[in-house]
Amino acid sequence: MHLALIGCGLMGGSFALATQHGGAVTHVTGYSIPHSSAQHFFELGVIQQIALSAAEAVATADVVMLATPVATLPHLLTDIATALKPQTLVMDVGSTKRSVQQAAVDILGDKAHFFVPTHPIAGKEQAGHAEPRTHLYQNKTVILCPNEQTHPKALSLAHELWQQTGAHTQELNALDHDRGLAAVSHLPHLLAFAYMDALLAQTDHQQLLALGGPGFRDFSRIAGCEASIWKDILIDNQDQILPLLQAVRQSTLELELLITKNQPKKLESVLNQASQARINWP
Amino acid sequence: MHLALIGCGLMGGSFALATQHGGAVTHVTGYSIPHSSAQHFFELGVIQQIALSAAEAVATADVVMLATPVATLPHLLTDIATALKPQTLVMDVGSTKRSVQQAAVDILGDKAHFFVPTHPIAGKEQAGHAEPRTHLYQNKTVILCPNEQTHPKALSLAHELWQQTGAHTQELNALDHDRGLAAVSHLPHLLAFAYMDALLAQTDHQQLLALGGPGFRDFSRIAGCEASIWKDILIDNQDQILPLLQAVRQSTLELELLITKNQPKKLESVLNQASQARINWP
Repeated sequence: MHLALIGCGLMGGSFALATQHGGAVTHVTGYSIPHSSAQHFFELGVIQQIALSAAEAVATADVVMLATPVATLPHLLTDIATALKPQTLVMDVGSTKRSVQQAAVDILGDKAHFFVPTHPIAGKEQAGHAEPRTHLYQNKTVILCPNEQTHPKALSLAHELWQQTGAHTQELNALDHDRGLAAVSHLPHLLAFAYMDALLAQTDHQQLLALGGPGFRDFSRIAGCEASIWKDILIDNQDQILPLLQAVRQSTLELELLITKNQPKKLESVLNQASQARINWP
Repeated sequence: MHLALIGCGLMGGSFALATQHGGAVTHVTGYSIPHSSAQHFFELGVIQQIALSAAEAVATADVVMLATPVATLPHLLTDIATALKPQTLVMDVGSTKRSVQQAAVDILGDKAHFFVPTHPIAGKEQAGHAEPRTHLYQNKTVILCPNEQTHPKALSLAHELWQQTGAHTQELNALDHDRGLAAVSHLPHLLAFAYMDALLAQTDHQQLLALGGPGFRDFSRIAGCEASIWKDILIDNQDQILPLLQAVRQSTLELELLITKNQPKKLESVLNQASQARINWP
């Protein structure tokens, strides 16, 4: 199969490497903005051909992987809509799934039946450049979000390709995906970013940060993620994230009241709920 | 030297093992509530003698380690004040330092000059039982909080004993300690507990938690800490923690406004501040 890789970063590059390694993909055409990323992938051997436009890249492809930030996807779908062959499988790797699914329906027409929104729960956890890796997805979970219109051939090929990367695939509708990820990923990122910003607002933040130990390291790790990616996710999925943020405000307020009113027993019982749930997490 | 270990848990037990392993301590008398913990330590060989009261344990000791929760320390100091030899070094391992320092001054009189509040930045990060380990403190940081009254002999012995556990020692006044730890430890714990409680308040929390990946795992890890320990820390150090919580509320609100007003560029710039600071953290 011929793969068109749009966006030459860690996520897409690792998919291209793993599916070539597995044998399903025999040729990869890449396209990226900036052009230098595709050039770099060509030199690494991740792709065998560089296209000068997204439309050119997808024209002969059997599979298209859109591996660019969430906010770029509607524009990209518009660019490739005409050039796409009718039964080419199109996937993306964005962290939100309703908006891209809706955009595909709006833009791709019948070809949207061959669009399968996917979300690999893996990737870089620090901003900046990272080289693609054949085994990035090994034992990771990839969520596929088909809808009623998804063509069974497209869905089964999507499963097959992701499983060839070593990942476990799981289906979820796009809304359940977006709510679930808001809870376990987007909200923690928002809180971690806000926490770091709050520390930076302290005049003595350098002395404070110097005292950070393992608790700080782990709690704040995701605040080191790429701002350009996360601004899109937070805006795109805000209807799911912000009500959960409100719930955190509520539980923070509850804890604060028990602290200021010096109610150690009640405080312990609320903390213990949280603690037990975390300990029992798989 | 003879060590009296009050409280038979991971922190104190590991200190007793490491200082015996290093050779500075030749005999350990233990006391605990419940008695079964001391009995268990006796069977493990961590202590060689069980005392029936804290006062009995410290009576012949050259060094006393108070390894019990923060809120128990004033009561414990009262229990041992009379029995303590005049120049016995007394230390604790609590996560807050001003309150215990003040309690020592109030309760121990001249003997308070031999009290050195200490805080090893190490320990268990999940609630529940954990066996003591000789190398728990290896390469960890231990903060010592002397004041102007601290006797130089007590301070240098405190450094020496902690260094014998393999830890690096660092001096800080108790206020700077309490503010710093509020920022990099107590506040993250409070937020992690509140986050877990907010998820639990969702009727579909089991489906949500099932989607947690590496980001969730690390961000929420400290929510699995022992509630009975953390209720004391949050109450004891609230004057330092709550203003920082207010700063987090402020920065969360700022992010929320940029999200709802759809300002991706400004949002990216605020997120990027946080991200860069986290990446540059040692």
